[in-house]
Amino acid sequence: MRIGIAGLGTVGAGVCKLLQEHAELLQTRSGRHIRVVAVSARDRTKDRGVDLSAMRWHDDPLALVLDDQVDIVVELIGGEDGVARQLVETALRAGKPVVTANKALLARHGTNLARLAEEAGQPLCFEAAVAGGIPIVKALREGLAGNRITRIYGILNGTCNYILSTMRQSGRGFADVLKESQEMGYAEADPSFDVDGVDAAHKLAILTSLAFGVPVDFNSVYTQGIRHVSALDIAYAEELGYRIKLLAIAEITGHGVEQRVHPCMVRESTPIAHVDGVFNAVVADGDYVDRTVFEGRGAGAGPTASAVVADLIDIAAGRTAPTFGIPVGDFRPLGTAPMERHKGSYYIRLMVVDRPGVLAEIAGVLRDQEISIESMLQRGRSVDEPVPLVMITHEAEEAAMRRANKAIAALGSVLGEPTLIRIEEL
Amino acid sequence: MRIGIAGLGTVGAGVCKLLQEHAELLQTRSGRHIRVVAVSARDRTKDRGVDLSAMRWHDDPLALVLDDQVDIVVELIGGEDGVARQLVETALRAGKPVVTANKALLARHGTNLARLAEEAGQPLCFEAAVAGGIPIVKALREGLAGNRITRIYGILNGTCNYILSTMRQSGRGFADVLKESQEMGYAEADPSFDVDGVDAAHKLAILTSLAFGVPVDFNSVYTQGIRHVSALDIAYAEELGYRIKLLAIAEITGHGVEQRVHPCMVRESTPIAHVDGVFNAVVADGDYVDRTVFEGRGAGAGPTASAVVADLIDIAAGRTAPTFGIPVGDFRPLGTAPMERHKGSYYIRLMVVDRPGVLAEIAGVLRDQEISIESMLQRGRSVDEPVPLVMITHEAEEAAMRRANKAIAALGSVLGEPTLIRIEEL
Repeated sequence: MRIGIAGLGTVGAGVCKLLQEHAELLQTRSGRHIRVVAVSARDRTKDRGVDLSAMRWHDDPLALVLDDQVDIVVELIGGEDGVARQLVETALRAGKPVVTANKALLARHGTNLARLAEEAGQPLCFEAAVAGGIPIVKALREGLAGNRITRIYGILNGTCNYILSTMRQSGRGFADVLKESQEMGYAEADPSFDVDGVDAAHKLAILTSLAFGVPVDFNSVYTQGIRHVSALDIAYAEELGYRIKLLAIAEITGHGVEQRVHPCMVRESTPIAHVDGVFNAVVADGDYVDRTVFEGRGAGAGPTASAVVADLIDIAAGRTAPTFGIPVGDFRPLGTAPMERHKGSYYIRLMVVDRPGVLAEIAGVLRDQEISIESMLQRGRSVDEPVPLVMITHEAEEAAMRRANKAIAALGSVLGEPTLIRIEEL
Repeated sequence: MRIGIAGLGTVGAGVCKLLQEHAELLQTRSGRHIRVVAVSARDRTKDRGVDLSAMRWHDDPLALVLDDQVDIVVELIGGEDGVARQLVETALRAGKPVVTANKALLARHGTNLARLAEEAGQPLCFEAAVAGGIPIVKALREGLAGNRITRIYGILNGTCNYILSTMRQSGRGFADVLKESQEMGYAEADPSFDVDGVDAAHKLAILTSLAFGVPVDFNSVYTQGIRHVSALDIAYAEELGYRIKLLAIAEITGHGVEQRVHPCMVRESTPIAHVDGVFNAVVADGDYVDRTVFEGRGAGAGPTASAVVADLIDIAAGRTAPTFGIPVGDFRPLGTAPMERHKGSYYIRLMVVDRPGVLAEIAGVLRDQEISIESMLQRGRSVDEPVPLVMITHEAEEAAMRRANKAIAALGSVLGEPTLIRIEEL
C-alpha cells in the first residue's frame, strides 16, 4: 500500500518515522506492506530527521495526489480551506482514500466531504483530528456503535489544560503562565486559536456529528476561551471543591443539540477534574454502556502519528466505515439548541465596594431574574479597596443569567466586569 | 444478518433488548438488518423481559449453532470448557463468525481458538470478555495498532474495586463489606472467582496477548486476591498518600513477559487511584502514543450487551481482524518472566511486641536480604498488646522479599502473618 504524505511538519515526519520503524509490525497487523512513496512540503532542504531518499518529492501537493504511484493520500497541511481542502476533494474524486488530521477542515466542511467520500466510495479517516492520543473517533464510530449517545464532553485542548493546571498548581495569573507556555513551546506565538476555544470547538463539532449522527455544525458551537479566568477564581474554585477546566460539551436537549466550549467548574471528585497538563480526555454517556472515559495525549508528533497510522492500518486491512459513522443521508435533523436556553448553575465573582446596602442591590437584581443563590462567600473587609464577593446560583437559564450579569455590572457599587463561570454537574 | 444466541442470562436478554430497541440505528450504522432468529437456554418458561416469540428455540445449544437460519453465533453460556467451548469450536468449523463474552474460555484456549478461527477464515470477537463497558479490545487491536505496547495494566474486576472502595470510604473490614456486597448483588454467593483475582487474571491474559502479540498464557499469571487487605492497611495507605487497588499488570521485562494480579498501593495522584466502585479502567503505554487511559463499567447487562453488539456491527459491516490482532503464526516468543524476578518496592505491616531489640531483629533480616528501608511508621505504645509497625522498602527483588518475609514471620516478637502489599509506580 503506497502512501503519499502532503505536509511534513512534526506530525508528517512522525508518520514517516513510525512507518519506517514499525514496518514489520504494521505488516503483521494490517496484512499489507505500508510504505511512503511520495511526499510534498514547502522546503525540500530542511532536515526532518527522517530518510526521504526513497520517496518521490512533489513541490505541488496536488501533483502528489494525482501521482499514479500513490494509493492513499495523507493530508497534514492544515487549514480549513485552500490547498488542504482542494487536496482532500481531489483525492476523493480521484478515488483515493484520504487520511487527515485537519480538524478545521472537517469542522467547516465535514458534511460535504463525507458526502463526497460516499460518492467516491472511499474512506475519509480522521482519528488524528480529535485528541490524537485517544482513539475516540473509532470508539464512537464502532466501539460504542450499539448505543444512543446522550452526551459527550471533554478536555480537547492541551494548551488550555496545561495553562489552567499550571495556574492552579502555581497560583500564578493567566498572562504570566501563557508567556511561559509560549517560551516552552506549549503555546503558539499567536495563542488565540487555542486560548479562545476555537480549536476545542472544531474538535467538538466533529465529535458531535459522530456521537449523535447529526450534520457537522461548527457555527452553532457557543465558544468562550480562558483569558478571563483569574488566579483568584481558581483559588475560590478549589476552596469550594471544584476545579476549573475548559470543557467542550455536546448534549441532546429538549431544544435540540447544544454545543458549547467554555471554562467550567467541575467537582473535584469527577474523573475529568484530575486530567492535568497536556492530556486530553473525552467522556461519552451511552444509553446501554453508561459512562465511558478516554484519556491520552491530545497532540504532539508521536500521538498524532499513532492516530494517522491506525487509520492507514484500517484502510490496509479493509476496515472502513462511513465518515461520521452513518451515511450522510441518515443524519438526524435534531436542530440547534440556542445557548440562551442553556440551564445550569453559575459561579459569579464580583469586586464590590464594601458598604451597607450593596448585597441588597445585587440580591434584588438576581431576584428580579428569578435566580436563587445556593451559597455566598465574602471574606475580608476593607473601607478603601473593593472586596471579592462570590456567589453560586441554583439552576438558572442562561438568558436570565446574562440579563442579571448586565444589570449587576451596571451597579455603582460593583467595580469592573463580573466574572461568570458555569458549573457543570457531570 | 441472522443471529443465534446461546445463553439467555441477563447479558443475553440485554443483547436481545438492545437489538430490538435500536434496530433502526444499528441498520444505519452497519448497513444491514441485524436480528436474532434463534436462541438457546435452559429454561424456556422463564420471563426475561424480552419478546422471544419470533425466535426459534433450541434446547440444545449445538443445534442452534448448526441451525441453517443462523449466520452468526453469540456464545453467552460461559465456562472455560464444556458446552461453551464445544459450541464455539463447532460454529467456527461450520464457517460461522462467533461473538463471545467468555473470558475463561479465551484465557484457557485463546491461542487454539484463534488458530481455529484463522483456519475457518471467520472472525472470533470478544469485546465483551474484558471490561464490557470499555472498548479496549478494539483499541488495542486497531486504535493503538501503530504502537509497540510496553505495558498494560488496569482495574479489571468491579467486585474487588467496589469492595476496596467501600472499605476505604467506610473504614470497615473485608468480611463485613464482602457480606454486604453479596446482599446487594455486587458479589456472588461464592465470591472466590472475583476476590481471589481469578477473573482479573483471565482478562489480563487476554489483554496481554492483544497488547504484546504473544500467545495467551493464563497459567503464567501470578495471582493474588484481596482477602488479606485489612482496614488498617487501607488507612495506612491513605496516610502515606496511596490507595489500594487490585491491579492486573502485564509488561515486557528483561526476563520476558510479566503478568500479575495482586493488590497494589498506587499514588493518590495517578488517574487509576480515582477509579472507584464498580468501574473498570485500563491503561496502555505505547511507544508513540504514550499513556492512554480507558474507563467504564466492567460488567452488567447494558455495558456487556453494548460490547457484544459492537462486535456484531463490525461483522455486519465487514470490519474484521485476526482474533488477537495478528495471525497466530506471528506471535512473538517472548517467554515468561518469573514472579520471583519482579522488582518493586513493598509495603510491609507487622504486628510486633513492643519491646527493646525488636526493630534491630527485623532490620537485621532485611539487611541480610539486601533490602533497604525508605520509610518507617510506628505509633502508639503498649506493653500489653502488639502494635503495628509499617515499613516501605526501596526497590527490591520479589525473591529476596519473600525470603525476608518468611524470616520476619518466624521472629518471636512478630505476631501473625506480616502483610505485604506491592507498591506500583505508574
